[in-house]
Amino acid sequence: MDELIKQVNTPSDLKKLHGNQLNAYCESLRRFILQTVPYTGGHLASSLGAVELSVALHYVFDCPKDKILWDVGHQAYAHKIITGRADRFGALRTNGGISGFPRMRESEYDAFTMGHSSNSLSVGLGYARARDALGERYHVVDVIGDGAFTGGMAFEALNDIGASKAKMIVVLNDNKMSISQNVGAMSEYFAKLRLSKRYTRVKRAVKKGVLGIPLFGDRIYKALDKTKDGVKFLLQNNKMFEQMGLKYYGPVDGHNLTNLIEIFRQVQNETKPVLVHIITEKGKGDDAAQSDPSRFHGVQPMGAQNERSFSQTVSHFLCKEGARNKKVVAITAAMADGTGLQAFAKKFPDRCYDVGIAEQHAVTLAAGLAAGGMKPYFAVYSTFLQRGFDQIVHDVCLNKLPVTFLIDRAGAVGADGVTHQGIYDLSYLSLIPDMTVLTPKDGEELEKMLQWSLSFNGPLAIRYPKSYAFDRPCPEIVYGEWEIVRQGDRKVYIIACGNRALAAAEGVAGASVVHARFIKPLDASFLDSVNKPDVLLLTVEDNALRGGLGQSVLAYLNGKGLRVKVHTVGYADAFLDDFSVEHSLKSAGIDTESLTALIKNFS
Amino acid sequence: MDELIKQVNTPSDLKKLHGNQLNAYCESLRRFILQTVPYTGGHLASSLGAVELSVALHYVFDCPKDKILWDVGHQAYAHKIITGRADRFGALRTNGGISGFPRMRESEYDAFTMGHSSNSLSVGLGYARARDALGERYHVVDVIGDGAFTGGMAFEALNDIGASKAKMIVVLNDNKMSISQNVGAMSEYFAKLRLSKRYTRVKRAVKKGVLGIPLFGDRIYKALDKTKDGVKFLLQNNKMFEQMGLKYYGPVDGHNLTNLIEIFRQVQNETKPVLVHIITEKGKGDDAAQSDPSRFHGVQPMGAQNERSFSQTVSHFLCKEGARNKKVVAITAAMADGTGLQAFAKKFPDRCYDVGIAEQHAVTLAAGLAAGGMKPYFAVYSTFLQRGFDQIVHDVCLNKLPVTFLIDRAGAVGADGVTHQGIYDLSYLSLIPDMTVLTPKDGEELEKMLQWSLSFNGPLAIRYPKSYAFDRPCPEIVYGEWEIVRQGDRKVYIIACGNRALAAAEGVAGASVVHARFIKPLDASFLDSVNKPDVLLLTVEDNALRGGLGQSVLAYLNGKGLRVKVHTVGYADAFLDDFSVEHSLKSAGIDTESLTALIKNFS
Repeated sequence: MDELIKQVNTPSDLKKLHGNQLNAYCESLRRFILQTVPYTGGHLASSLGAVELSVALHYVFDCPKDKILWDVGHQAYAHKIITGRADRFGALRTNGGISGFPRMRESEYDAFTMGHSSNSLSVGLGYARARDALGERYHVVDVIGDGAFTGGMAFEALNDIGASKAKMIVVLNDNKMSISQNVGAMSEYFAKLRLSKRYTRVKRAVKKGVLGIPLFGDRIYKALDKTKDGVKFLLQNNKMFEQMGLKYYGPVDGHNLTNLIEIFRQVQNETKPVLVHIITEKGKGDDAAQSDPSRFHGVQPMGAQNERSFSQTVSHFLCKEGARNKKVVAITAAMADGTGLQAFAKKFPDRCYDVGIAEQHAVTLAAGLAAGGMKPYFAVYSTFLQRGFDQIVHDVCLNKLPVTFLIDRAGAVGADGVTHQGIYDLSYLSLIPDMTVLTPKDGEELEKMLQWSLSFNGPLAIRYPKSYAFDRPCPEIVYGEWEIVRQGDRKVYIIACGNRALAAAEGVAGASVVHARFIKPLDASFLDSVNKPDVLLLTVEDNALRGGLGQSVLAYLNGKGLRVKVHTVGYADAFLDDFSVEHSLKSAGIDTESLTALIKNFS
Repeated sequence: MDELIKQVNTPSDLKKLHGNQLNAYCESLRRFILQTVPYTGGHLASSLGAVELSVALHYVFDCPKDKILWDVGHQAYAHKIITGRADRFGALRTNGGISGFPRMRESEYDAFTMGHSSNSLSVGLGYARARDALGERYHVVDVIGDGAFTGGMAFEALNDIGASKAKMIVVLNDNKMSISQNVGAMSEYFAKLRLSKRYTRVKRAVKKGVLGIPLFGDRIYKALDKTKDGVKFLLQNNKMFEQMGLKYYGPVDGHNLTNLIEIFRQVQNETKPVLVHIITEKGKGDDAAQSDPSRFHGVQPMGAQNERSFSQTVSHFLCKEGARNKKVVAITAAMADGTGLQAFAKKFPDRCYDVGIAEQHAVTLAAGLAAGGMKPYFAVYSTFLQRGFDQIVHDVCLNKLPVTFLIDRAGAVGADGVTHQGIYDLSYLSLIPDMTVLTPKDGEELEKMLQWSLSFNGPLAIRYPKSYAFDRPCPEIVYGEWEIVRQGDRKVYIIACGNRALAAAEGVAGASVVHARFIKPLDASFLDSVNKPDVLLLTVEDNALRGGLGQSVLAYLNGKGLRVKVHTVGYADAFLDDFSVEHSLKSAGIDTESLTALIKNFS
């Protein structure tokens, strides 16, 4: 850790640095991040791009009194280091260390817990209105990427902000891409805005020159400034935000510290909402990350285990079936890489839709495609699909449309932590009428489920974690039928779903093990067959207990007259604040040792 | 029913009408709607405003081959009458009759099931892409109100549509308000667009004149038309949609049939997405509805029962507490009337935020307000809160913020039907960690709950149907404690929540009746006290069984070692396709007769 990093432990320390020291500190931050994240894993490219921005904001504003809200929050590493977390930065994304995202609980400098995209404008407006209602005085600064702007929620907030006239500063951190290539009309619009960079430079030169005129400079500048609107108007470009009621500043080079500090000082005095448009480069300062920021969006720690990935199976299936069947289309919400759609998108660009960070639209677009006769697959992370809950109910399931949800990163997610846990999907999907929910235990079974999905004519969700250990042969998929994986003791049945729960179950000596491929509907005839006194049914799931597999099993059997003993294993009713998958599973008793002990207790 | 209404049973019949007949038909439609809806109840004002629009669309387009998507769908009565449902129109919103919203199942002319707002652009783009991928040929026409445009989902879709270049026609039906007064920056923007009406008139006059020139008229017009962009540019107004990639037409008088037909014919030939901006008046043709469209948005059938409304209690509480406590703020998503915020909004305009149809933003705005030290109340209909599910999880509950959700129209909703049923909230709210869920049985209890909420420092949901029959005294609220309403037979306990379930339970002779004020957490000590062999616990709820009160009770008791018999009553796992509250309740066995029979069966 170099001297400057050691020296700055609060924003006040930062404010003591002068001139070149500030630039040197930026380089130290960049080096520190580059030296650490390859070992810890994390969001490298975004945070490298936001170094000068973080320094400028903390230099100008006065946190924690002022509130800086980092949308998504994966770009906030420099912010964390500046605000006293340098010493724990080596323990990024681990238990006992610090989160990869801002967390209210972690630091008073984290004004809100971030993780999901496009929510920061709503939070910011909430703070601004609370401040004004309580007669307090502080700044609210929102940092939001161009990618996050495709989220409808950001637009909903912008609509309210523009009309509210509330004093707040929105920093549009435009790095010309979100997690993968940015998409949509807004992206094209931002590209146009970038071209008007020259305009700002001209304006600045004029300002400098004019303000230099003794005594009258200020007044002349103000007079000139009024013509600004005319100039802007001719440039055609930055009208959208002004039409929405935000005063537009920019574009500004987001790696020029002096410019950033200057503009933030200037906008502090605005009394209405302003938008500062800054241009940054993802991965700035690291050649590899800068040349391929999509690959370096999230990096795995060096030496991470190489398990097989479910998304590989998805990729293979879609490419193969896409070639045979032109009705097969795929949708991603800015996650083509992570969900395995990349290859399909390359092969069939006309049938792969990246809608941006826009899960609501993604779900209903799928519904529309299905209504129009296509066979859509929406590949999405479990935690982000929560955004489309209403659309799954109202647009997909109510119409019984054959949309298939490929739900990745389900269950405990490890290092991304509490905001990203995929442990609610079995619950919120199972409660929707006419939804069918599957959990594969390996790529082989996922492949069979995908094949089966082609002829299944209704809403379907297939959920799985990122990876699994090994493949094995499995029987064909039959609607509502579970797989008896091991016939052992006929007094103890472990019903497990997915590879993690199953791995724990299979380690238990003697017990019969059943794989619940179908979470909805349940295998009624199997359950009926074991509904006998003196039998113990243990359900195991990498999901919250509430509304999950176990409670469904219990409710079904209770309806039939409960004779068997049922015990459910899964996550308790609390947020899973944990950075390690293994630890998460153990803490919930989803491991062989715990299950073995449990069975002993019952007998 | 007049002759023209009888004569037109399909769009083909409509196409046979000529000149003045078309205008006469519009008047017939308007009269027919005005004569019927006061008796059936329904969305009068919106449908009156869309009469000419419906006629023009069906006159120009060729349904059901072409797809017309009515956003929200409450403006589609004329569409229903034109497409063969005049004879059933008197049975609007009743079992055995027709739905108040478009439904795929009801008619091949209803290209999608509508009800929730702002989803139609996504559906439309899905249809358009399916059409293009399959090489089919039809038009996709989206009719969306200015109010629905505040929904972020519409923006997500617009962003995708603009970039997709897919051929589709978006009709912005601008009636200058959504359900209550329209809000936000977009609304101001639309207001500006309206002012450019003159421009269209000028253009039309020019066109008429020029096209009249023999032989060369067409070519001259085209040349002139190119300057149009310059003119538009100077008008400053309609750039936003063009920047988003949609060609803008308008504004057009939405009650001038000739103009509408002309413009729809013209845009049929566009190969890229276009937006046609039409101006209509809600309630057109009915003086009362036109002068107060907010009151006439949804009308109750004449002679409807006058029960007491829960929203009245909300209104009273907020006004009273708002005067005492400046931290009390209220939020509505375009539903100030229906949720009881109107009076508070008038008294404390600075502390009442109508965010438009934007539930995602509403939830997180509340979270931000709470983080900033306020006490926010978000009053919302149960079915619409589904839109904010992720935000409740990620922004409110994860941070344990003291946001109170006042959830109206919970349980069966009757005439609005399947898209509006509020029967999932107990399930999707209870599965969220750190959420507390309450159900009052009357206004008296709701008042006590609201008082109690003031000192409760965490996420809180209070859910209730529209109305209840009578008030009675009740004990103070104690966290996690149920109310023993009647101590009867100690072998049969009926645990009911909310007025409807309780009314059914109290009718059962002899049984002990408990009111589950708290759905989460459960009253553990009560449940422990009755967990004995030979006791029957009957849970009754106006909610889906999956994940509801009953299954929570069962899971809790099973974890403790189940000795008592538990039987759960509520809605089965199917969409509740029903237009009558009474019938809904009966069909689920939530009535005294069914409960009595059930108990007999057990003993």
